Parts: sequence; C-alpha cells; structure tokens
Amino acid sequence: MALEPLLSPRRKVVVLVGGVGGAKLAHGMAQIVPPEDLTIIVNTGDDFWHYGLRICPDFDTVMYTLAGMVDPVNGWGVAADSTAMLDALRRYGEQPWFRLGDRDLATHLLRTIGLRDGQRLTEIMARLAHSLGVGATLLPMTDDPVATMILTAERGEMDFQEYFVRFRWQPTVKAIRYAGADAAQMTPEVRAALVAADLIVFGPSNPWLSIAPILNVPEMRQRIASCPVPRVALTPIVQGQALKGPAAKIAAELGYEVSPRTVAEAYRGTINGFVFDERDAAVRLDNLYEFSDLRTISCDTIMQDDVSRARVARLILDWTASWEADHEHLGDHPR
Amino acid sequence: MALEPLLSPRRKVVVLVGGVGGAKLAHGMAQIVPPEDLTIIVNTGDDFWHYGLRICPDFDTVMYTLAGMVDPVNGWGVAADSTAMLDALRRYGEQPWFRLGDRDLATHLLRTIGLRDGQRLTEIMARLAHSLGVGATLLPMTDDPVATMILTAERGEMDFQEYFVRFRWQPTVKAIRYAGADAAQMTPEVRAALVAADLIVFGPSNPWLSIAPILNVPEMRQRIASCPVPRVALTPIVQGQALKGPAAKIAAELGYEVSPRTVAEAYRGTINGFVFDERDAAVRLDNLYEFSDLRTISCDTIMQDDVSRARVARLILDWTASWEADHEHLGDHPR
Repeated sequence: MALEPLLSPRRKVVVLVGGVGGAKLAHGMAQIVPPEDLTIIVNTGDDFWHYGLRICPDFDTVMYTLAGMVDPVNGWGVAADSTAMLDALRRYGEQPWFRLGDRDLATHLLRTIGLRDGQRLTEIMARLAHSLGVGATLLPMTDDPVATMILTAERGEMDFQEYFVRFRWQPTVKAIRYAGADAAQMTPEVRAALVAADLIVFGPSNPWLSIAPILNVPEMRQRIASCPVPRVALTPIVQGQALKGPAAKIAAELGYEVSPRTVAEAYRGTINGFVFDERDAAVRLDNLYEFSDLRTISCDTIMQDDVSRARVARLILDWTASWEADHEHLGDHPR
Repeated sequence: MALEPLLSPRRKVVVLVGGVGGAKLAHGMAQIVPPEDLTIIVNTGDDFWHYGLRICPDFDTVMYTLAGMVDPVNGWGVAADSTAMLDALRRYGEQPWFRLGDRDLATHLLRTIGLRDGQRLTEIMARLAHSLGVGATLLPMTDDPVATMILTAERGEMDFQEYFVRFRWQPTVKAIRYAGADAAQMTPEVRAALVAADLIVFGPSNPWLSIAPILNVPEMRQRIASCPVPRVALTPIVQGQALKGPAAKIAAELGYEVSPRTVAEAYRGTINGFVFDERDAAVRLDNLYEFSDLRTISCDTIMQDDVSRARVARLILDWTASWEADHEHLGDHPR
C-alpha cells in the first residue's frame, strides 16, 4: 500500500494585511507561494482624499513591496522618490503633511482617474499591480469607502491619516470605529478568494487599525471564521512593544495588556492558530481560549530582510500543512 | 498759462496674450508698468483635462514667466523641473505625450481641486499667482470652458493640445473653431479691466490660436473695439516666419499671405495700431485698412531677454501715449 503524501503540494493562501508589517509577510509569502496561489486582501480603512487624489497607503505599500520598488528605509513609498511636487506646493503656501512622492503621484493619478471614470478600485489596482510586475493577486478589502476614525482624548474624533501621519499617533486613543463598514460590500474577488482558500493568514499588522477594518466588512468575519482551513494570525507585539507603529500604545490606551495575548484575544472566534515571537515564550497562550483549540507556535517573527520574511512564511506554511491530517480542529471553532 | 502735461503719468494697461510670445511681452510690461495698473487677459482655449488634472498651458506660461520661475530654454514649464511622475507613469505602460513636470504638478493639483470645489478659475489662479509673487492681475479670458478645435486635412478635427503637442502642429489646418465660446461669459474682472483700460495691447501671439479664442468670448470683440483708447497688436510673423510655433504655417494653410499684413487683417475692426518688425519695413501697411486709420510702427520685435522685452513694452507705451493729443483716431474705428 503506497503512502499518500500527507501534505498538499500546492495550497491557495490568503493573507490579510495592513501596511508595512503586513507587506513584509506578504512579500515573504510571495517568495515561496506561486503567484496564482497567493491572494493578499488589503485594508482600505486608511484610504483618503488628499489634494484631489485618492490615496490608498496600505495598498500601495503592499504593491510597491511586492514589485520590489518600495523605499527600503521607510518601508512605504517608492524607493529613491523625490518631492519636487511637495516643494512646489509649499511655494504656494500649502503645508502638506502627507508625503506624496513624485513617482508615487503616478499611482494616485491613475487610481483617481479610474475611480472618477466609474471603475472599481479592485479593477484599477489589479491593472496597476500587474503593470508593475506583481504576480500575486492584491485585493482591496472592499470597493466601498470605509474610513477608520479615531476618537482621541485630546482632539475628539479624527481621520485615520490625521491621527497617524499629521499627529504622528501621539493623541490618546479612546475608541475606534470603521465608518461606512456597515454599508460596504464584499467584492466577488474577495469572496472567491476566501472560498478557495486552503490557508488564511493575518499579517503582523495592527489588530485595530489594519485587520479590524477588514474583518468589519459585512460577511468577512463570518466567512473567514467558517472556513474549514488553518486561520493563523501573527502578532505585531513583541516583548511589550510594537515592531512598528502604535499597536502597543493603542493596546495600553484601550486598557489591554500589551502582549501577544491581547492580539490573540482581538481575533477570538476568527483564528484557530497564532504565531507569537520566541522572545515571548514565557507568555502562556495555550489556555487562552476557553475551548483551548487555539494552536500556537513561536518563532523569530522579526522580518528584517527578504530571507527572514521567507523564513516566517515558510514556517507558517509548514506548520499549518501538518494540520491537514487533523481536521477536527479546523472547522468547529466556537463562534 | 501753465502747460498741462500731455501724457498721463499712469495708464491702465490691458494685454491679451496666449503662450510664450505673449508671456514675453507681458513680462516686458510688468517691468515698467506698476502692477496695479497691469492686467493680462490670457487665452484659455488651450486648456484641457489630462490624467484627471485641469491643465491651462497658456495661463501657467504667463504666470511662471511673471513669477520669474519659467524654464528659460523652453519658455514654458517650471525652470529645472523634473519628470519623475512622468517616468513612473511610463512604468505603468502609459505613454504621456504632454509634459507634466513634477513642480508644475502642484499648480495643476491646486487648480483642479479648486475647480472641483466649485471655485471660479479666475479666483483660483489669482490666488496661485499671488502666492508666487506675481503683482500684475492675470485673468483667464473666461471661467467657462472654451476649446480651440483644429480641423486638419489628414486626421479630421482634433483637440488643440493633440494638434499642438501630440502631433507637433504638423497636420494641415483646414479650419479652426472655438467650441463653447458662444456659451461662455465674460467675467466681471475682464469687463472691469476693459472698462478701466487706457491702452489695450494684443501680444505677439498666434492670431488664430491665441488671440482669436479671447476675441470670440461673447462681448469681448465689441467691447475692445469700442474702447476709445489705443488698441495695438504686435505681429508674431517676421520676415515670413513665425517667431515661434505654427503662426506662419497656419497662415499659409488658411490661404493667407505669410506676412504681418495678414496679422493686421486678422484684427481688422478691433485694433487701431499695429507694431511690425523693422525687418519687414518694406511691407506696406499704411493703406491696409480701407479707412486708413490703422497707425503702424516698426521696431525690433524680437524679445530674447528681459531688456528687449522691456524695450518693446516701452516703445508701445511711448508711441501710444502721443496719441492722446489726437483723440479722433481712437474711438471712431469702422466696425
């Protein structure tokens, strides 16, 4: 009797991401998953209008990263971009607080005219990403406007980019809401990707600012939670700090323990696997969920370079592949 | 009995211009006329939408020239501008045929958001010009869309910029029309400038592409023609050639003699003075109009540098100042 291979040689992978951290994991996946098997669903809660242009910061970060043209220092924007347009705006007395690089502007212009022309964001960005040589499928979480709004202690509610860029995430966060999410629709492309998924991964993005907007698109949380496949999240919090950005600060401001446990809690009912950093090995996660069915693994989650990104992606693929012999854990998560 | 000074020490000057040639004369005037006494009415028949931006080539050329920031080689665009955005557009597979410099983009963005916000082009551009330190009043000929359309022998009718930039004014011109001109309205600012004018000058711009669109704004030709002041045009054609652009080529294609005489004829009924180049001194212009009331003068009309621009402007001011003792020629032109 011949042994069947335990592991499926090819699996359809869906990754949910926000900005820089998520882009790194997406890039790791893109290095080892065939492009036709990889779909990245990107947060659009950060999107906004600026100087008449539609800006999609997270999407562009992921696209530029996968196209190999992202600025290696910032992790966002186009490498070696210039700011002649911004300088000229200042000559007009403007005080632009969001960086619009000159090369970057081409993306915003093409996106904006596509939208004004009535095209769907999904279609527009598929075309742009393809032009840049991105093989994986990049999907905005929805084509409809969803705006992550931040209620701050000092200045009331503000747009995400005001909070994040203009005020450098210094105001104290009291609450977050996802304006427009109720009326947003899941796109056919996102639905099809979830239906086909053999593995769903939440990038090490900010749970409240990057992943929650995606999960708040109607049907999204339910559809993901009911997928009978590994659904794994990575922590963006390591040793009580965020790898980048305000995740730790917000966790504390919202009254949570600043630890991977809080991240896992934020995804309760949606994930069945969790990757935390080996530096937090002392954090007890095994009994986190009441039904104890959250599988956990720790590793070095820091993705400084291409090799470490591929290493983290490989770990997730290999770890979850072994689950397939053990289906009972996958589809029956308490919700 | 004391002698009254013959010449008014200050006169309100209105200059009608199109692109580069007109901008040079406007700049000459700006050097010697106090800014509060100088109004430039600019052709907007060239304006168009490109990559979602409202582009006003002639207006920007005049504005950049008066602001001292125009590209000294091209005579249009911003000096030392870069093209990173255009390069990035090409990476997306676009083939942009109109040069949008990176610094230049700031102008287009601010204009576009102003228009989308419901502001008038006149207001928007006044603000931008002021920000750049332009003291003279720059006015679009109208706030309404007027599109100079070129009927060509080879390719049918095309937009002005297609003809001018994309096809480098090589198609043969059969006819020109000013789409939308009938429905355009003269702005209060243009009307007030004409009412106050002590001198009206048509820049050495293309009569059919730059000045005619202005004159075709309803009321414009009649109001100018009825102003009892010197109304002087400069020729853009010298020695059978255009100083720049397609004026000579179009004159020939429309079946006219390629000479300053044709330019003067194009303004029949509107001007009462005409400046041609000293190199064309042999061209008889004195009997050009049937009533012989077109005053003419010749000079070196080539405006290579700031000094020669001011010299031509000074010549026009001095020449026309002497007319004021001789009013019968100014108000009774046959129309």
